[in-house]
Amino acid sequence: MSPESPDTSILDSLITRIRPVDPAVVRAAREHQDRLTKPRGSLGELEAVSVRLAALAGTVPGPVPAAPAVAVFVGDHGVHAQGVSPWPREVTGQMVANFLAGGAVVNALARQVGATVRVVDVGMSAEASAVVGAAPGLDRRSVRAGTGDIAVEPAMTRDQALRAVAAGAEVAGELIRAGHDLLVTGDMGIANTTPSAALVAALLGADPVAVTGRGTGVDDETLARKVGVVRRAVTRATSAGAGPGDPLGVLAALGGLEHAATVGFMLAAAAARVPVLLDGVIACSSALVAAALAPEARAALFAGHRSVEPGASAALAALGLVPLLDLGMRLGEGSGGVLAVPVVQAAARVLAEVATFDGAGITDKQAG
Amino acid sequence: MSPESPDTSILDSLITRIRPVDPAVVRAAREHQDRLTKPRGSLGELEAVSVRLAALAGTVPGPVPAAPAVAVFVGDHGVHAQGVSPWPREVTGQMVANFLAGGAVVNALARQVGATVRVVDVGMSAEASAVVGAAPGLDRRSVRAGTGDIAVEPAMTRDQALRAVAAGAEVAGELIRAGHDLLVTGDMGIANTTPSAALVAALLGADPVAVTGRGTGVDDETLARKVGVVRRAVTRATSAGAGPGDPLGVLAALGGLEHAATVGFMLAAAAARVPVLLDGVIACSSALVAAALAPEARAALFAGHRSVEPGASAALAALGLVPLLDLGMRLGEGSGGVLAVPVVQAAARVLAEVATFDGAGITDKQAG
Repeated sequence: MSPESPDTSILDSLITRIRPVDPAVVRAAREHQDRLTKPRGSLGELEAVSVRLAALAGTVPGPVPAAPAVAVFVGDHGVHAQGVSPWPREVTGQMVANFLAGGAVVNALARQVGATVRVVDVGMSAEASAVVGAAPGLDRRSVRAGTGDIAVEPAMTRDQALRAVAAGAEVAGELIRAGHDLLVTGDMGIANTTPSAALVAALLGADPVAVTGRGTGVDDETLARKVGVVRRAVTRATSAGAGPGDPLGVLAALGGLEHAATVGFMLAAAAARVPVLLDGVIACSSALVAAALAPEARAALFAGHRSVEPGASAALAALGLVPLLDLGMRLGEGSGGVLAVPVVQAAARVLAEVATFDGAGITDKQAG
Repeated sequence: MSPESPDTSILDSLITRIRPVDPAVVRAAREHQDRLTKPRGSLGELEAVSVRLAALAGTVPGPVPAAPAVAVFVGDHGVHAQGVSPWPREVTGQMVANFLAGGAVVNALARQVGATVRVVDVGMSAEASAVVGAAPGLDRRSVRAGTGDIAVEPAMTRDQALRAVAAGAEVAGELIRAGHDLLVTGDMGIANTTPSAALVAALLGADPVAVTGRGTGVDDETLARKVGVVRRAVTRATSAGAGPGDPLGVLAALGGLEHAATVGFMLAAAAARVPVLLDGVIACSSALVAAALAPEARAALFAGHRSVEPGASAALAALGLVPLLDLGMRLGEGSGGVLAVPVVQAAARVLAEVATFDGAGITDKQAG
């Protein structure tokens, strides 16, 4: 198999399995929601989430998710060489060790909501891998040791992108077979807001200055450099033929290995009709790729929060997703997705458990 | 004891017990938050909540709240006669029966977060009481059967307001002695967004049109009538001498019995240094009264969500509180407060459990 015509059978199979939701179930869910003992519409976005969850499950009410799991996909980025982050590359490995020891924010938040944390290496650099060593608990599925520098070269080959997509899909499949019924995207990779911004700019045709943010908190000078890097990367990729009509090509040209794995994770969850909570800009930019590959996959996607990164908001708007939290967070790791787990559970629980007006004998004075 | 000089000793005692937080603890909490293994500030509002919780507890880190409880204070409103709600007064009683049967939204949300639900009658009307009957499980502390019609008369006497405040304080005290470490305000009372708007208008000097909302979803005609009723009520109360300098007088003139109980609930929690999560406009308007009586009580108050009601946002802004959720909710019952419980727990847990840079051996490249 040549790099020019890689094996797309796993991706094709995933896409084929993603079917549209049944409009009759959507209607039935909306009607049931409107019979619950509360003024219609009074739960705002929670009502919409409950209807989407039922539609995804294909039953009214849908099940209440009880076993969440977050997958933290880890990759490094050649574009780090352009000075887009103040943090050294070894921090990717140090944070992986922190995840495995249970000491990071995502671990604390996961304990709060009863979520399992799976840490998956799909592309750590040699420096980061050296820090982690032979740590048990790390799910090793590395496709390559970090991406190419997107300012000057493709991030990866199409075949590598496909293999990372397959790795992410396998992780989702394993978690679902183990009984997890609510998946959350997580990520770690120093410099990974830069490829995220590049993906959003390329897929939405947006100006890099509008979708590139401060990431972990870079200063004005670094932000200006980062915008320039994103602009060069998108121009290079577009000149090489990558555009919205070829989402896999855009992913390979500009993405990270953790983005590719996240795409596969989302597609596999959508195929299995399991909801996926998105964290921040890495997830949102990956979701643009997933939705370009399989538009019906959007039915499985729920936005955990509105990240401070402007690219995340641009992607969510394009995807038609409403973030459940808006707390000014910009950490990554899956933190914003995990924090939103109880909100998703609550939405499902309202539809499943609240009494109806006729069932409870309560006067309903609402206009039909 | 005459109605003109009622016994204020319980209220005075509560206020005296509310002490300011220690600025040294606030500093220590902020410094600890800044040593955690994440970019500084990257958890946004969650960091501020963690610091406020530690400050309230007086220790760094503070405890992680593990036993939440919501108190749903129930009252009826004479102003219902003005046609400010399409729902008949008996619905207050029907919903109380629904709470006691576990079938309402607040029950479903409370099960999701492991919260106890306490339903407290502080002022149901005779019609509502007839619906509820001798139901076990209802905490009966009625001060009077509904308020007066604030469009034409005071809601209650100062003595009745004080007794409802004391009832709410007793409920908080009982819950805290039973081990509850995170209290949530809830309310039920058909028409109770009208006195809420009146309290906000009177205490903030706001124009009624700016702080009166659609409550359960009234039409334009009813909203216009409701604004007029609020305006008349505030004018009447102000003419009678009630103003921001006399928060108890404003509460008695314009509030509901559930508002008065919520004020006592907040003050008792603040005195015991237990955090209180506010639900919507009933809680926010009550919080204005509590903060006017005891400004330091604000340290115990956390805004669960931004209700659709404009009076809630006006009150939160005046109190300097940032809502944790913003989902377009407007139900009441404590729903928005209960839904935010895991966010508060998560904030405390991050400060308590996340590793520090030096502890985890992670490179910290952040400017001092």
